[in-house]
Amino acid sequence: MSSGSSGGSSGGVEVLDLTAPLSSATPVLPLPDHMAPIPRFELEELARYDHRGETSFQNGIHTGEHVGTHLDAPCHWITGAEHGDVSQIPPSRLVAPAVVIDRTAEVAADPDYLLDVSDLQEWEREHGPLPAGWLLYRTGWSAHSGDQASFLNADDEGPHTPGVTPECAQWLSEETPIIGLGVETVGTDAGQAFRFDPEFPVHSHLLGAGKYGLTQLQQLDRLPTAGSVLIVAPLPIVGGSGSPARVLALVPSREKGVL
Amino acid sequence: MSSGSSGGSSGGVEVLDLTAPLSSATPVLPLPDHMAPIPRFELEELARYDHRGETSFQNGIHTGEHVGTHLDAPCHWITGAEHGDVSQIPPSRLVAPAVVIDRTAEVAADPDYLLDVSDLQEWEREHGPLPAGWLLYRTGWSAHSGDQASFLNADDEGPHTPGVTPECAQWLSEETPIIGLGVETVGTDAGQAFRFDPEFPVHSHLLGAGKYGLTQLQQLDRLPTAGSVLIVAPLPIVGGSGSPARVLALVPSREKGVL
Repeated sequence: MSSGSSGGSSGGVEVLDLTAPLSSATPVLPLPDHMAPIPRFELEELARYDHRGETSFQNGIHTGEHVGTHLDAPCHWITGAEHGDVSQIPPSRLVAPAVVIDRTAEVAADPDYLLDVSDLQEWEREHGPLPAGWLLYRTGWSAHSGDQASFLNADDEGPHTPGVTPECAQWLSEETPIIGLGVETVGTDAGQAFRFDPEFPVHSHLLGAGKYGLTQLQQLDRLPTAGSVLIVAPLPIVGGSGSPARVLALVPSREKGVL
Repeated sequence: MSSGSSGGSSGGVEVLDLTAPLSSATPVLPLPDHMAPIPRFELEELARYDHRGETSFQNGIHTGEHVGTHLDAPCHWITGAEHGDVSQIPPSRLVAPAVVIDRTAEVAADPDYLLDVSDLQEWEREHGPLPAGWLLYRTGWSAHSGDQASFLNADDEGPHTPGVTPECAQWLSEETPIIGLGVETVGTDAGQAFRFDPEFPVHSHLLGAGKYGLTQLQQLDRLPTAGSVLIVAPLPIVGGSGSPARVLALVPSREKGVL
């Protein structure tokens, strides 16, 4: 990206959309029966070039905050209750560098694959320290996002989708400068994380450290290991525990950096 | 903005949030009684660290597409029906240069002030051609956004808020390369635009040309006349006529350009 203001997506930068389309088919995390379910995304047609709106078309929106590609704000979890809601995230944190760790092959062999501290330490030896930005965990899982059953991959033992060990969740939260973890799966924790100690360790540790979760990302295969910039754009919902978010990546071409 | 990937909001670029906070107090455009109303933004608490969600907090969202800071997609208007929905906007158009025309003083003197072609031609003589990006119409009107009555400024003759003449709406749509018009008011058309020919000319012409409207922007006073980059991030709602949108601006500091 050259300096100057000629701009747009030209000038050596590609704008990639990492967001899953939002519709009533968007997969939603099922919660245990005794808990309030996450509402699916639904449009309600209010007018469509007819007597209800004359020359206009508009819909109502009904959804949960944690639907589709979405951001978990710290207060989504009790450990992060004091770290603020989704409207309180500083704008400067919504535009930040991103790095990618690729575990596509491992997850193809084992859907319950868990990333551990040693994996990230090995990554850092090769690529340098994790940034004050986003760690994006590429698993290939977005290939399943068109079908809820395949995306959740559940059997009698619960969902089987990749995640992070409790030790790694704690290490990312306490020992690295990352501002958040982005994943391709329905949530930031592994499908089997209800059995972990603590339960749902990414939620517990990351949000408890005032960091963010980002889910259901797509096209991570098109990002470089380092050098892209992530634009994370949740709605600024006052009191919101999270929000569906548009997520764009600025990817340098011609071997230039972005920011 | 220098090249390299050290990034975030450092490196000579400030990230400004132009988005109004979303809550049940967010002003909504009242429509005539015979038309379907635009639903207000409402959160529905589903669980808050209690038996409904154990250690989690989450809400449901109910809103109209055209609420708060939002994007009008071409298909919001019958003239733009064939130009696509909000999920079909190319990602490259979501990151684009922005310029500002300031009519704060004129609007303070006359809330029904209308921008005309000659104003923009004069602007172009001073600052160069309008870009293939956003024209942001600064009016100071966002100062009223905390109070719906003041924001709509209606009397027996209807709302009195600033806008654009029909001729200017047509000129912007057909004779300039802008991709959209951004405003501080509740909608892109003037409060009195229901009396214009055509009615609501910005909606009719701009969306009919496959361009976009962007409303209820804040902090336009903090943008330079030219040289900033706008990130416009609506939710990718399949079949959506628009969406609440997060809008960020990358503003160069130290006299460097952004993109």
